[in-house]
Amino acid sequence: MVTGYTGNILRVDLTKEDISIENPDDIFYRRYMGGEGFVAYYLLKELKVGIDPLSPENKLIFAAGPLTGYAIPGTGRNSVGAKSPLTGGFGEAEVGGYWGAELKHAGFDAIIIEGKAKKPVYLWIKDGEVEIKEASHLWGKVTGEAEAIIKKELGDKLIRVAQIGPGGEKLVRYACIINDLRNAAGRGGLGAVMGSKNLKAIAVRGHKKLEVSNKEKLKAKIQEYHDVAYKTYAGYFEYGTGGGIMESFAESGNLPTRNFRDGNFSGAKVLDPSIMKEEINLTMDACYACSLRCKKVVNIKEPWNVDPIYGGPEYESIGAFGSNCGVDDLKAVCKANELCNKYSLDTISTGVSIGFAMECYENGILIDKDTNGIKLNFGNAKAMIQMVEMIAKREGLGDILAEGVKKAAEKIKKGADKLAMHVKGQEIPMHEPRFKQGMGVGYAISPTGAEHMANIHDTSFANERAIQQHSAIGILEPLQLNDLSAKKIRILTYYSNWRNVSNALLVCYFLPWDYVDIPEIVNAVTGWYTSTWELMKLGERITTMARTFNIREGFTKKDDWLPQRFFQPHTSGALANTVINSEELERAINIYYTMMGWDNDGIPTKIKLEELDIGWVSQSLYSK
Amino acid sequence: MVTGYTGNILRVDLTKEDISIENPDDIFYRRYMGGEGFVAYYLLKELKVGIDPLSPENKLIFAAGPLTGYAIPGTGRNSVGAKSPLTGGFGEAEVGGYWGAELKHAGFDAIIIEGKAKKPVYLWIKDGEVEIKEASHLWGKVTGEAEAIIKKELGDKLIRVAQIGPGGEKLVRYACIINDLRNAAGRGGLGAVMGSKNLKAIAVRGHKKLEVSNKEKLKAKIQEYHDVAYKTYAGYFEYGTGGGIMESFAESGNLPTRNFRDGNFSGAKVLDPSIMKEEINLTMDACYACSLRCKKVVNIKEPWNVDPIYGGPEYESIGAFGSNCGVDDLKAVCKANELCNKYSLDTISTGVSIGFAMECYENGILIDKDTNGIKLNFGNAKAMIQMVEMIAKREGLGDILAEGVKKAAEKIKKGADKLAMHVKGQEIPMHEPRFKQGMGVGYAISPTGAEHMANIHDTSFANERAIQQHSAIGILEPLQLNDLSAKKIRILTYYSNWRNVSNALLVCYFLPWDYVDIPEIVNAVTGWYTSTWELMKLGERITTMARTFNIREGFTKKDDWLPQRFFQPHTSGALANTVINSEELERAINIYYTMMGWDNDGIPTKIKLEELDIGWVSQSLYSK
Repeated sequence: MVTGYTGNILRVDLTKEDISIENPDDIFYRRYMGGEGFVAYYLLKELKVGIDPLSPENKLIFAAGPLTGYAIPGTGRNSVGAKSPLTGGFGEAEVGGYWGAELKHAGFDAIIIEGKAKKPVYLWIKDGEVEIKEASHLWGKVTGEAEAIIKKELGDKLIRVAQIGPGGEKLVRYACIINDLRNAAGRGGLGAVMGSKNLKAIAVRGHKKLEVSNKEKLKAKIQEYHDVAYKTYAGYFEYGTGGGIMESFAESGNLPTRNFRDGNFSGAKVLDPSIMKEEINLTMDACYACSLRCKKVVNIKEPWNVDPIYGGPEYESIGAFGSNCGVDDLKAVCKANELCNKYSLDTISTGVSIGFAMECYENGILIDKDTNGIKLNFGNAKAMIQMVEMIAKREGLGDILAEGVKKAAEKIKKGADKLAMHVKGQEIPMHEPRFKQGMGVGYAISPTGAEHMANIHDTSFANERAIQQHSAIGILEPLQLNDLSAKKIRILTYYSNWRNVSNALLVCYFLPWDYVDIPEIVNAVTGWYTSTWELMKLGERITTMARTFNIREGFTKKDDWLPQRFFQPHTSGALANTVINSEELERAINIYYTMMGWDNDGIPTKIKLEELDIGWVSQSLYSK
Repeated sequence: MVTGYTGNILRVDLTKEDISIENPDDIFYRRYMGGEGFVAYYLLKELKVGIDPLSPENKLIFAAGPLTGYAIPGTGRNSVGAKSPLTGGFGEAEVGGYWGAELKHAGFDAIIIEGKAKKPVYLWIKDGEVEIKEASHLWGKVTGEAEAIIKKELGDKLIRVAQIGPGGEKLVRYACIINDLRNAAGRGGLGAVMGSKNLKAIAVRGHKKLEVSNKEKLKAKIQEYHDVAYKTYAGYFEYGTGGGIMESFAESGNLPTRNFRDGNFSGAKVLDPSIMKEEINLTMDACYACSLRCKKVVNIKEPWNVDPIYGGPEYESIGAFGSNCGVDDLKAVCKANELCNKYSLDTISTGVSIGFAMECYENGILIDKDTNGIKLNFGNAKAMIQMVEMIAKREGLGDILAEGVKKAAEKIKKGADKLAMHVKGQEIPMHEPRFKQGMGVGYAISPTGAEHMANIHDTSFANERAIQQHSAIGILEPLQLNDLSAKKIRILTYYSNWRNVSNALLVCYFLPWDYVDIPEIVNAVTGWYTSTWELMKLGERITTMARTFNIREGFTKKDDWLPQRFFQPHTSGALANTVINSEELERAINIYYTMMGWDNDGIPTKIKLEELDIGWVSQSLYSK
């Protein structure tokens, strides 16, 4: 077995209560590498076409990567995947924390969950031993309570738990999976898949020592990291994401405001964790082995009690519950975030769903009768928090919003679909595509629906170091925000493929490591003689596999598009005269297809699949 | 200016006797890097479409690379390019020796020669100073004499000379350019272009000290090289190319025999320099700064005097004049090789042209009247040597053969075209495509015509180290010799692009450095933060630019094909039952086009050009 792995893939069939361990060959590990690579492989290889994502036929994959479980900053992540109940297509998300490392230490590289348990269960994995355990007493419990009970009954405080709260149990279509109470595999509704299988949690504990191929080299790379990181990422150490940027984001029009309707948000300043540090009692936490410590922990007593065990909000959550709901109250945002972690709801989809409902309410599409009398105006922090609870419990309007804005709009009718801010059914993250237009194209073409995690950040040429880093893949000239020419799409193509490298290796984006460092680190750990080329091709392979999955599930070119709102300007602010040009967008998408080696309908060609060393995938596209 | 370059490109207009120096910007250097990259740039950018390659409108480019002139083993090379008088398409060749390094030391990265001198001249470049000098007294002289006179009249024995002999002056369409009397920019007839410009030689001397970005890193890489090279390349140190392999090549059917007609060559053993070492008084020489010392020097008194100043034959020359002419006499091969260096003829094209004439003679297509009575049978060593002289001087049949086998066959008629072993007018090198079938596809699609220098070697998975090296670009499974499936074409695509990286950076193929080392070395010298991805894309860029050049000159898909002979088996030997399947070949070529991002006719798409960061090139294809 290649260093970097345990060599064991755990397969658990909950219907049959069958537990087995598989040992794939070295080429499997090298070709797919881990994380999203494993997810793409198993979903394409094993899932029947057209299944209901919430049926026992769906499979839920948890996957670590070659660097997971080592004392390497930024590698404390794991990937989760399934057919998404939110989009009906490829579902995959990454999550930080400690659980992934613990899984490797317990002797497994990945877990494939199949079938559906007759009654609620949880998995208990300890040092290679696996047990399916009764969980009826945990069902209905919020994550904090469930974790406390699990640790107590298993008698080990150092157990790591990935789990769902009531949101996942209630099959909220954007329910997430929560690691260590505060880290979310957020997007795509993977928590609902877990809920549909009656699987409450996976508790893990392990003591395996992982081997390193070249300790000296690895040590040197980590030292380099420390030399650079403390210079480059000071803001992250102190305030995490969103710190010090909220006001400038608002001023540039990049901060989604009132369901992406408005421009500059006057309350941006008081949403900034660097300004509100005292008010929210901000401290910082980290993922496994990471010295960056970018994870917020907030501790608030009034007007809402926010329990620090649930961490604190990331930038995405601040945007979704703050400006996007017109709420200029960081404490309320923290409360909404805490509830999402308790109930296992994705903060982006939850916030955008509420913002959608607020605009429906202000436009008279929803009325008091629909909201149980809640005054669901933009800026009503209390109403927002109520809505989070109602979504998690599927109460009243919450039951409709729990379907995601696309399905909700179909139920609400009356033109609500024009206010539903999603791509492929997944709610839009907190980067305004009229500002970052490359990101906009990325939203449109992402296989998981609107997503910021496998996408370009058009502002990434901010400093000399970034310019140097990008040159390593032949990007020699800076990005322009509103450029959608082939030059820009080239960069989007490279970037989005590389993001999938991070999602396969499970290297955090916030680390200063780049196209040159990462192959070196992979080499140091695994001994693989790898290169930027091999890894970039891995990224392209994964993008193409995810695309293929969607095509076989019936997605077409038409699904690669943005909500109508982005072709109109903001009501005010810096982008009051800026839109995405729909013809340019269409041209950009076509360019992207061609650059990916896909045909004019965005279908990967047989030859491209062969070039990516996954000829077998063509069965999904061409055998019918 | 980026470290690794002088920042100066010399432009000499021989018609106007105008000398100028240009200073391209950093992005030019990084995007095209050097060597074949510069050649591709200037030919596409500056040459008018449809010009006669032997007219003053052609341009002759000499280009060094970022590593040239440093004390780095394997980098003592330069590239030469022009529109080829042999193929009418993209002409480019690389050459070892000392001249390239001297050019950089003299203060120039490249030379662009334009126009035509009124009478013979040579260029004298010394430490940034450039002079056009009278060369009437050198015209007609063999290279050894001319070099001696130049060194004497300029009063410096350490001057390095790139020049043509009478073959170039007589516009033999496969005349080469000779550096240091023994190193040839062999293929494509670049010596004829030099001759057509009345340019006899370029003499260079320089003392510039080139800066290194990271001396420690460079030193470490060179030390690594020494550790590996002496273990891996023992055969090269002692006998150079061809040493110890001739008999096994013959036995496997890989040794071209009697104009590619026959199989196993019984005389292979006595063509082997490792066996004939004493007979040819073999000693070894090196290129600039190279410790590999793979260049043969032979010293023979009888039956032919072979002057050691002209070095000795490479494998390609042994094959072309030996087995391919049915000649089992290494001394005769050495003499033919010496004459080629004296007259500046490409040994491959010369040998294959003579082999062609021999088969014509044996088949009665040429008769004694045509050969001036020379009995031009296979195996007639003396006749072979006579023919080299006649070609160089364009005497009798030599005048016809000096046009290359394609044009010669058109003149000879009587079915001679069936015996003309060429692709796009360039004679086939000494690797049997029925044996190495990937190489065969490479011959068919190479922009320069049949060529082994930008091609796959199907036997490259010979050892553990090779397997590891290839894994760096995602080649995880070994090659099969006769496989022409998409799996194989993927590897051909990667390989041939990477070869163009070597041809741009001017790194010798014989060095043990690979996909991982080379970016590191480029980084150490230039400071560029580069990667395998950036370099592989450079290779793809160059391949695509060369392809584009050919298309605008009228080449079509039909020109990507092999001689009919390869679809028939050898008369005997290991390949007596082996052919290239023409349907498989066609499919393989189509797969290659697609993998390169070209359309079904092999024309690069606009989007592919943008993806390669050379959008401007589309003018050559789409502006009409």
